[in-house]
Amino acid sequence: MHLMVIGGAGMIGARLVADLVAKGGLNGRAVTHLTLADVSLAPVPEGFSGKVTRVAVDLSAPGVAAQLIATRPDVIVHLAAIVSGEAERDFDKGYRINLDGTRALFDAIRAEGLRAAYCPRVVFTSSIAVFGAPMPDRIGDEYFRTPLTSYGTQKAICELLLEDYSRRGVFDGVAIRLPTICIRPGVPNKAASGFFSSILREPLVGLEAVLPVPDTTRHYHASPRAAVGFLTHAAGIDTALLGSRRALTMPGLSATVAEQIEALRAVAGDKAVALIRQARDEDVATIVAGWPRDFDAARATALGFTAESSFEEIIRIHIEDALGGKLG
Amino acid sequence: MHLMVIGGAGMIGARLVADLVAKGGLNGRAVTHLTLADVSLAPVPEGFSGKVTRVAVDLSAPGVAAQLIATRPDVIVHLAAIVSGEAERDFDKGYRINLDGTRALFDAIRAEGLRAAYCPRVVFTSSIAVFGAPMPDRIGDEYFRTPLTSYGTQKAICELLLEDYSRRGVFDGVAIRLPTICIRPGVPNKAASGFFSSILREPLVGLEAVLPVPDTTRHYHASPRAAVGFLTHAAGIDTALLGSRRALTMPGLSATVAEQIEALRAVAGDKAVALIRQARDEDVATIVAGWPRDFDAARATALGFTAESSFEEIIRIHIEDALGGKLG
Repeated sequence: MHLMVIGGAGMIGARLVADLVAKGGLNGRAVTHLTLADVSLAPVPEGFSGKVTRVAVDLSAPGVAAQLIATRPDVIVHLAAIVSGEAERDFDKGYRINLDGTRALFDAIRAEGLRAAYCPRVVFTSSIAVFGAPMPDRIGDEYFRTPLTSYGTQKAICELLLEDYSRRGVFDGVAIRLPTICIRPGVPNKAASGFFSSILREPLVGLEAVLPVPDTTRHYHASPRAAVGFLTHAAGIDTALLGSRRALTMPGLSATVAEQIEALRAVAGDKAVALIRQARDEDVATIVAGWPRDFDAARATALGFTAESSFEEIIRIHIEDALGGKLG
Repeated sequence: MHLMVIGGAGMIGARLVADLVAKGGLNGRAVTHLTLADVSLAPVPEGFSGKVTRVAVDLSAPGVAAQLIATRPDVIVHLAAIVSGEAERDFDKGYRINLDGTRALFDAIRAEGLRAAYCPRVVFTSSIAVFGAPMPDRIGDEYFRTPLTSYGTQKAICELLLEDYSRRGVFDGVAIRLPTICIRPGVPNKAASGFFSSILREPLVGLEAVLPVPDTTRHYHASPRAAVGFLTHAAGIDTALLGSRRALTMPGLSATVAEQIEALRAVAGDKAVALIRQARDEDVATIVAGWPRDFDAARATALGFTAESSFEEIIRIHIEDALGGKLG
């Protein structure tokens, strides 16, 4: 099976590939050819025995999508995107990459299928940013898409395109709306959501972290490991079960910052918690106040998608996957 | 004030212009310049005393949107679209006209605004086709967009674009989802929805009409006069009242075909009703079964949009507006 991961050089892409190698395939199917496409060259996947193609391309550039799809991958996982903040700052770039790039991919699949029968599985990563305030405390599967950012708008549009192209048999698509990924490995970044990870990640290795919002702030999370599980499950699911509604809010853990901190205390003690410094940032607090707090992801749960059920579990997964199983 | 009507050669465009002339302006503001753009040249508006520009153009062709917007209209009413059936038959044409044409318009406004401050009111006609089965019997304002056609997908995407561009201050947009327009004047057409009009319109002038669905079929209607009222109200409304949610389901009349027929009987007698011939068409019945039956258009109603409250009223409006006030 030929698997193509677009955005394959990022954190989730790398974890997906590591998972493939560990499990010897995707949902029990051997991956004989792996294509990793991204704007920068993805690292050579360690331990992968099949054919590997790595390409550094801009999906939105003319001809690129057609060139990728000419290799007729069986499963395409499309992770590539300009992040929320950048899409908001750079209107043209956000629409070009997040909307036009995705549409170019979809249209290239259509063109390939018009040449000779072709209907790959396409897994598209959408986001809970397709929702925006005012919202119910818990958002159900039939609540309307109300993005308040250009990023969220672009993701919502791509969901609609994916559903129409799938309905027409151009490809067999599934769009998965990822919760905020926590604990995100690496160094602190300037994303407004960054603190959700850093208040756990940094103290776990003895470093200080700043909490810019009240600890009553509630948000919706899943681990990087859960995200890989979502992608894998979406790649293998029987899409007849989805009907025409192929954009699914993934399950996640709704928790307050205080609950995150208590989980940190349970796993790593008071010493770790003492490294969190409260320093309210009005800008961040205002942005985060507009974000969803909880979802009733009933459809995805019924379809077998699973996430963590406690923040202790999320922290332990980070210790296993990012810290080699060892704490401090 | 400069008003531009894109799709100005169609039935609704013509009625909007006639209404302007009759009322001497748009929401009490004089229209000094009227531009009618469409793929074919609109007729010269009768009785209009201001400057008239008529252009026959394809909005999706390169440079056309920029050329239209260079005239800096104050209010733009965008009615132009490939209809549902054609957008379904011709994938490329539907996306090109309904999505790319609209986006070209929006981007031309943005480019014009980057040259010098410019923020026109844009009224975009969307459709209840952004919804598709399975649906609740009565669809509320927060129900999610679930189009089951490429046309509905294109309209839903344009709603999202309109909301994002408006949020960013590119223009001041309102998207109105029109009910099925009834009684549509003219001759019977092949649209699946055509019978809703023809079973009233034809018998009113002594002609036979065919009913292809059971008379228990329920659907959601508004008159051409109500549609003009929606456009006019949307052109003048204080958009601060809309917040970030600028796509509004218009009020309408939910009625069964049996209720339509009883209204015809009340207005035009048994003789008219006898001209309706029941001849079930499975294809039409199947299509119509997937359509919305009723909406709770609470937001639009609270914002002052109004439609008819009985089918007798809809029939009387047709007699006044299309038959010169005379029956039979």
